Amino acid sequence: MTTWCRFEKDNVTRYGLVEGGQVTAVDGIPWGEHKPTSLAYPLASVKLAIPVVPPTFYCVGINYADHIREMAAKRKTEPVFPKKPDIGYRANNALIAHEENIVKPADAGEAFQYEGELVAVFGKRCRNVSSENALDYVFGWTIGNDVSERGWQKEDRTLWRAKNADTLKPMGPWIVTGLDPAKMETVIRVNGRETDRFATNNMIFDTATYIATVSKYCTIEPGDVMWMGTDGVPENIKPGDTVEIEITGIGVLRNKVVAGT
Amino acid sequence: MTTWCRFEKDNVTRYGLVEGGQVTAVDGIPWGEHKPTSLAYPLASVKLAIPVVPPTFYCVGINYADHIREMAAKRKTEPVFPKKPDIGYRANNALIAHEENIVKPADAGEAFQYEGELVAVFGKRCRNVSSENALDYVFGWTIGNDVSERGWQKEDRTLWRAKNADTLKPMGPWIVTGLDPAKMETVIRVNGRETDRFATNNMIFDTATYIATVSKYCTIEPGDVMWMGTDGVPENIKPGDTVEIEITGIGVLRNKVVAGT
Repeated sequence: MTTWCRFEKDNVTRYGLVEGGQVTAVDGIPWGEHKPTSLAYPLASVKLAIPVVPPTFYCVGINYADHIREMAAKRKTEPVFPKKPDIGYRANNALIAHEENIVKPADAGEAFQYEGELVAVFGKRCRNVSSENALDYVFGWTIGNDVSERGWQKEDRTLWRAKNADTLKPMGPWIVTGLDPAKMETVIRVNGRETDRFATNNMIFDTATYIATVSKYCTIEPGDVMWMGTDGVPENIKPGDTVEIEITGIGVLRNKVVAGT
Repeated sequence: MTTWCRFEKDNVTRYGLVEGGQVTAVDGIPWGEHKPTSLAYPLASVKLAIPVVPPTFYCVGINYADHIREMAAKRKTEPVFPKKPDIGYRANNALIAHEENIVKPADAGEAFQYEGELVAVFGKRCRNVSSENALDYVFGWTIGNDVSERGWQKEDRTLWRAKNADTLKPMGPWIVTGLDPAKMETVIRVNGRETDRFATNNMIFDTATYIATVSKYCTIEPGDVMWMGTDGVPENIKPGDTVEIEITGIGVLRNKVVAGT
């Protein structure tokens, strides 16, 4: 297990290895040529950046049976379970790092909600792979918060502002290699109060199945990310709230909500 | 008017200025710091690359009234016109350059179709701009072919493989600055036979309106692209066919269809 962060220090953004409260700066990229430098900083002294700017930003819309059942009950509709792993997308403009602020747009409604998600970060080009081999192409894992405005999600023809307004996609704090998704638990806290807890791998279609399916038609590139969906029924969040998403072995992604103007 | 291409020569990909059948290599990027080099090549001797790898790849789904009416008639459904400019997305894995091959997936159906589209390429960061000023943020214009598999488009929960399978997004041949979309015409030819011709700007919501709307919520970055939708009723294309999309002042985007394995 190795922890790779991307960080800003003295106006330079680069990758670093995190160990024992220190960040060692690295020249290059984690899934390509790289070598550690002699520069090391206390973790607390650097600003973490999003761990990668993905060439393609894949995201699974609905992937947990309980989430589908409970969201349908809330909307007073029948639950509709996906019959196959049709992947979706999110947009890079919305990405923010650990500890950066989620800006709730001024005209967003009350149903402004977090979604805590496991994120696979790819390290190798991947095309037409079997589900048995699919996880070999994952470099490591991070955490995503798929913040969503439910009114716009329902009314707009696409998910553009409901899910991709600036700052609505916190990702981080860093990437951890060598983890087993089957042993992860996702815990979500709002202002320190636990609001959701679920087995991360309790998915309708697991990460390996998604990768195998997508790679039949689409070449997945190093640096691409795949967000794996969320479970449970997210609560509303409002300016002043702090959302923490913790996944076993990765860490905690923490972001405060502030009011947009 | 300046014509910027991105090209490969001797295993290096860089930008170039096209003039009089020559490409002059340029260090840097068109919308950032750059300077021409002393290297020049005959245009015919270089391989054109996609003119940009966009950080965010915006695409308008339906934006021409005739296209909506005629597609609805073909499907025997009522036409549904968009009430507001809700933007969508496409994925970078699918991008190919001028003269590269569109690979029709082996299991794709007969309704495999071109869509000829005007593409705005952004040169400046853009947030919360008015429609009056919106086009100031467009660096130049190129052409896109939003190749679509209609069966998957109808059946899948998202547009992932219907529109984003590898090679389904030809873009190019280059970017031309200083053009007025109001004076453009789009002409589409399959194997040299004209299949569609329409006023490029005959949109339900024009480019400036889309930019102003998107920029209320999303920061558009330099290098982002926005594909503006298509008119008419596209025809099926099959392996062996060559599709040309010509837009006044930009040029011709040409791609051959080959069979996937």
